[in-house]
Amino acid sequence: MTSFFRPSVDAMVGYIPSQQPKPGTPIIKLNTNENPYPPSQDAIAVLHNLDPEWLRRYPDPYANDFRQATSEVLGVPVDWIIVSNGSDDLLNLIVRSCADLGRKVVYPMPTYVLYRTLTDMQPAECVEIPYKEDYCLPIEELVAANGAVTFIATPNSPSGHIVAIADLRQLAARISGVLVIDEAYVDFAEETALPLVKEFENVIVIRTLSKGYSLAGLRLGFGIANPKLLSGLFKMRDNYNIDAIACLVGTAAMGDQAYKNECAEKVKASRAKLAVNFKQLGFRVWDSQTNFLLVQPPKGNAEQIFLGLKELGILVRYFKQPGLEDKLRITVGTDEQNQVLVEAIRNEGGERGEERGKIFIKGS
Amino acid sequence: MTSFFRPSVDAMVGYIPSQQPKPGTPIIKLNTNENPYPPSQDAIAVLHNLDPEWLRRYPDPYANDFRQATSEVLGVPVDWIIVSNGSDDLLNLIVRSCADLGRKVVYPMPTYVLYRTLTDMQPAECVEIPYKEDYCLPIEELVAANGAVTFIATPNSPSGHIVAIADLRQLAARISGVLVIDEAYVDFAEETALPLVKEFENVIVIRTLSKGYSLAGLRLGFGIANPKLLSGLFKMRDNYNIDAIACLVGTAAMGDQAYKNECAEKVKASRAKLAVNFKQLGFRVWDSQTNFLLVQPPKGNAEQIFLGLKELGILVRYFKQPGLEDKLRITVGTDEQNQVLVEAIRNEGGERGEERGKIFIKGS
Repeated sequence: MTSFFRPSVDAMVGYIPSQQPKPGTPIIKLNTNENPYPPSQDAIAVLHNLDPEWLRRYPDPYANDFRQATSEVLGVPVDWIIVSNGSDDLLNLIVRSCADLGRKVVYPMPTYVLYRTLTDMQPAECVEIPYKEDYCLPIEELVAANGAVTFIATPNSPSGHIVAIADLRQLAARISGVLVIDEAYVDFAEETALPLVKEFENVIVIRTLSKGYSLAGLRLGFGIANPKLLSGLFKMRDNYNIDAIACLVGTAAMGDQAYKNECAEKVKASRAKLAVNFKQLGFRVWDSQTNFLLVQPPKGNAEQIFLGLKELGILVRYFKQPGLEDKLRITVGTDEQNQVLVEAIRNEGGERGEERGKIFIKGS
Repeated sequence: MTSFFRPSVDAMVGYIPSQQPKPGTPIIKLNTNENPYPPSQDAIAVLHNLDPEWLRRYPDPYANDFRQATSEVLGVPVDWIIVSNGSDDLLNLIVRSCADLGRKVVYPMPTYVLYRTLTDMQPAECVEIPYKEDYCLPIEELVAANGAVTFIATPNSPSGHIVAIADLRQLAARISGVLVIDEAYVDFAEETALPLVKEFENVIVIRTLSKGYSLAGLRLGFGIANPKLLSGLFKMRDNYNIDAIACLVGTAAMGDQAYKNECAEKVKASRAKLAVNFKQLGFRVWDSQTNFLLVQPPKGNAEQIFLGLKELGILVRYFKQPGLEDKLRITVGTDEQNQVLVEAIRNEGGERGEERGKIFIKGS
């Protein structure tokens, strides 16, 4: 054996996760799109009162309590739902189930970088098609690429734009492989592509509780598709991928739609204010239906701003990638956090340490 | 596209998980080898007092708190440890990283059935070599099979036997692929193969918190190997596979070795008593270094006993597999649960409903 690993594993570069400092670290964390508000009190109560017997025993292999709650909220049958250890686990499962040598993975760029990492693992050919001007979907090129898997993140990261349902419908109808509609940020958007799963048996919609439900630390995601499409995924998944706590806490969070929606409305209002602030500072700001903004500074110094903010304890995201030159992706925080951010940029990393100190205590 | 899925996915049969009724269901559950005692009070306290900020934020991608605690307990460096969403997640990761067409997976039979499922997913050729008489390791055949991955579960399930360290050392030295020593049940055994990871760079030892630490519902496992072997696995894993709760609760459980050992001693004492009881009933009983017993009834009616016990609300494991004809795998419960089990078998599923009622309340 020349290597312990398959050749594609030796060849690939692993995904590099963003900085994830511990709670309590004095920073303003606007780099990985967490919700700035805490999870539902109902979810926290479940956690704090959990009978330890749920820990001792193996969990329900199907996470049926969570599927039931989700079924009721979304109005889809329970057997149209598959649950995963965060939505990344489900994206991984889809690529492993469908892609291979001769079975391509296709997506428009720029988008979630994990799609590339997952494809490289298989190995499968990766076809990356640049978005057109103003993030218009390159439908003809996507269809022509003939993917076994086609990923569309909508709303997309890091652009924040939403893909028109009519475009997704056209794409679904014209490709024979699986169309994965990754709706990680849907809770901050004005529409969802969910109805397409009933129209097309090659469509799966992916959701997560990491963003809208403030549960990034819990690792809980799910997919909605017809049972025929789910059948292969169920065979390939780890049967005990959902721990008992995630199932119960997630069930409570899913049941508290009012709170989730209330937080989303606050984020959307803050997003609008933050966009105005950036425009006043001369930045280009892309329209966003997510909980972050893609912005471009007037002076061509995105990397310096990124580093300057980091110095001040404010984490944002800077990508060294084609199509993302000189841009920053900034999570929408609380209004107070956003104000500290804007002031820091206005002062080019100047004073206001004292105010930042206050925010740290509240926000981190 | 003729199918959404890769041909090997269409061809495979998924793993069928055992019955996992919810806590509170009136049964005696001796089918999936949970520890009969609750998790450490330290672990429960962490759960019940968790700051919700740990839920809102993404978890540490490396689960370093848990790695640090494990490093101290086992006396291995932190960078020799990889953490997974249950040990099944790590077994999956190893097969995906190392096995493929032309890169075989090899193991002695009977053993953990998941090894087969994981191999079928890849696809890779699966070489199953029957154990010799009295579960003696077929070293020559295992070496000759030349696996990219060779799995040895020790103590093994469902036999309960331990593989001699000398045999493992010989195997590690003679194969060029990865030797996976799956020590899921090591907390109930008299020895560990852990020192082999320092002798051989192709050896990884796998552990879980599901059995010894009473945390099957938490999904937390880990592997110990030299960093060169771990490098490929780190590239292939899901970076946020460990949720923040599992990391913190697992860290507390790992820190409470005294309690874990105390529970293991109680289980071992109960195992000895239960083995005597089965022998008195005329069963063949295999020596066990685990928290279960493999037994064979005198009348050739294992399946009937399995069904009769199920009728009474007592779940045990019956396998329809070559090498396991007419045998039952029975988890060691509390002494009270074991007594109800033995009485039920003695009475061939007769009376004692009332006493069972009491046990249900305590034990389930």
